[in-house]
Amino acid sequence: MARNRDFVARLFAAVDSVQGGDGISIILWNSRGEIMKLAEYFENTRGTAVFATADANGRVDSAIYSHPHCLADGILGFVMADKRSHRNLLTNGQAAYLFIEEGDDYRGVRLQLDLVEETSDPELVNKYHRHPAKNCELPVSDTIYFVTFKVKEVRELVGDDDPGFTL
Amino acid sequence: MARNRDFVARLFAAVDSVQGGDGISIILWNSRGEIMKLAEYFENTRGTAVFATADANGRVDSAIYSHPHCLADGILGFVMADKRSHRNLLTNGQAAYLFIEEGDDYRGVRLQLDLVEETSDPELVNKYHRHPAKNCELPVSDTIYFVTFKVKEVRELVGDDDPGFTL
Repeated sequence: MARNRDFVARLFAAVDSVQGGDGISIILWNSRGEIMKLAEYFENTRGTAVFATADANGRVDSAIYSHPHCLADGILGFVMADKRSHRNLLTNGQAAYLFIEEGDDYRGVRLQLDLVEETSDPELVNKYHRHPAKNCELPVSDTIYFVTFKVKEVRELVGDDDPGFTL
Repeated sequence: MARNRDFVARLFAAVDSVQGGDGISIILWNSRGEIMKLAEYFENTRGTAVFATADANGRVDSAIYSHPHCLADGILGFVMADKRSHRNLLTNGQAAYLFIEEGDDYRGVRLQLDLVEETSDPELVNKYHRHPAKNCELPVSDTIYFVTFKVKEVRELVGDDDPGFTL
């Protein structure tokens, strides 16, 4: 397992991303050293996520969040209530998403996100709100938004390793 | 257990803080509904913490961190390497500390922190660096700092409940 971990670390250092035309994908390695697309990673990996934002005055906030919805071309979407995370995004569209895989060894991934757009169109919100994650920062608010982000950077959960690929 | 949880929620809503002269303490309830000082809470509660910062341009970062050192009068201290979290603090002293208790039910606490001061004095750093937590964002850097913060706000891990007490 340690050898496998070293192998993954070398892969991380050597390979920034696998890119191609319009169909750019974000490539990740899961805890077993298998290469996965970001969408597959989140589909197949249980864990806990923290969504961090800051307002225009630099006041930072963080909240437990659900897995992202992985859309095309490195765009992620989240269903958000109009609470502090969402309000911060109105004045500063930069966010950090940290995902801790289930288990005791602090594996996971950190994503640097830039706001793309948001909608409160009920049809779209409901499409993605079908299976709300337990305990995420959600409902109870009047308006629910579906907010999309572009992934600007991917890092391992712990350490300096920084593939640094932008899409 | 649910009744106990409701009781704690009502306590949270009703009581902002318990204050007294110079010896101001931060009061928290642990997952069993017992009232604890912040220091006791962190001494007695296992979990995972995320430290979030933002630079002067509002670029947010988050990292796995250790439990805080609870000093007098609501001051917390962290041993920090000169990585992104620490560098962000040089231009924006506001941070958010999120602590997830061990277990499946998303209990924990969120602290809003304001930078007080930092030192790289080896004697002080080593005093607090005796038992470095596994997997926190630490060593490997040339300079290690001991950085202190004032707690500006305490919230539950999940939800809107916001005792909002400042010290």
